[in-house]
Amino acid sequence: MTAQSAVVGKTTYLNGIDTKAAADTIAAIKNDKSLAKFQFRATNEWVSGGENRSTIRDFFGAGMEDTSRAAAFTFTNGEPPVLLGNNEGANPVEFLLHALAGCVTTTFVLHAMARGIAIQELSTELKGNIDLQGLLGLDDSVPPGYERIDIVMHVKADCSDEELEDLMSYAQQHSPVCNTVCRPVPVTVTRAMR
Amino acid sequence: MTAQSAVVGKTTYLNGIDTKAAADTIAAIKNDKSLAKFQFRATNEWVSGGENRSTIRDFFGAGMEDTSRAAAFTFTNGEPPVLLGNNEGANPVEFLLHALAGCVTTTFVLHAMARGIAIQELSTELKGNIDLQGLLGLDDSVPPGYERIDIVMHVKADCSDEELEDLMSYAQQHSPVCNTVCRPVPVTVTRAMR
Repeated sequence: MTAQSAVVGKTTYLNGIDTKAAADTIAAIKNDKSLAKFQFRATNEWVSGGENRSTIRDFFGAGMEDTSRAAAFTFTNGEPPVLLGNNEGANPVEFLLHALAGCVTTTFVLHAMARGIAIQELSTELKGNIDLQGLLGLDDSVPPGYERIDIVMHVKADCSDEELEDLMSYAQQHSPVCNTVCRPVPVTVTRAMR
Repeated sequence: MTAQSAVVGKTTYLNGIDTKAAADTIAAIKNDKSLAKFQFRATNEWVSGGENRSTIRDFFGAGMEDTSRAAAFTFTNGEPPVLLGNNEGANPVEFLLHALAGCVTTTFVLHAMARGIAIQELSTELKGNIDLQGLLGLDDSVPPGYERIDIVMHVKADCSDEELEDLMSYAQQHSPVCNTVCRPVPVTVTRAMR
């Protein structure tokens, strides 16, 4: 097991996060709120049927275009045979669960660090229920999206059960992906100019 | 370029989708609505800091547990240096854009097939704006999630501009991920029993 709390050189890490860099980031944003404004981006190309591929690399944040990534990330969506595909990749609603799991986890880890709580173990199990009559347009009363998503969190940390419960609730409320799912977020779809 | 409309043996494909298999699926669901109920799942394990990894394989749908995947898919969330990580992977809010891009695309392709429209090219560009004061808990009036997400779609298809615009609007309204983002979906976070 990796030590999640350590001092390397003059840098102190808690939960794998450089505590001074984190404090400096918070101070910089408090001093100039515009540094907190980020724009994330993806481009996606259809391949065939339920297969398509996203490329993710650049983003804007902390007042500038990021140039830290030597190469782009690529991810392939696919569908299982029961949804007329060949398992070319996980499907989009499954990738949403991955995004949600990761975001709640990172938000939890970040705020644990801010509270001085060391985490030993953290894992989550997600289940999302969906009725595909919505996607298929068979029943207008059925929402096309998830009906609900349930997350079970396994966690061991250096704090009381009460502190852990409070941190879980805080992470749920402050996770960007969880908030994007829980709250209505406007999405526009516009045709490209030729 | 792959031919997206083809007859292979006795199977007819449009946009890479087996049209008879699609019609059979719709007929089966109309006959038994419970076949449309799916449950997707992910498990995620924290690694360190902003790095964590999801495993996705099994799901329930069409009345049974799926067994079509020989191996699990795994995906790694990470964070860029400006967000205190080492680009271990794309970050969760970027994975959300990938999920959204793929879902709108697949929904578009599926309903184009249902309408007999052949697609030649389809790609999307997504931009999502977010203010990280929400995540950091610095200002309670700032939502932690995306403020808005804008999708630009490039598409060439065998139909009129009017049919294309109608299909775009239909795909936006019926995409499960788009609907999950646009509409408030309940998420629960519960601590695992020991």
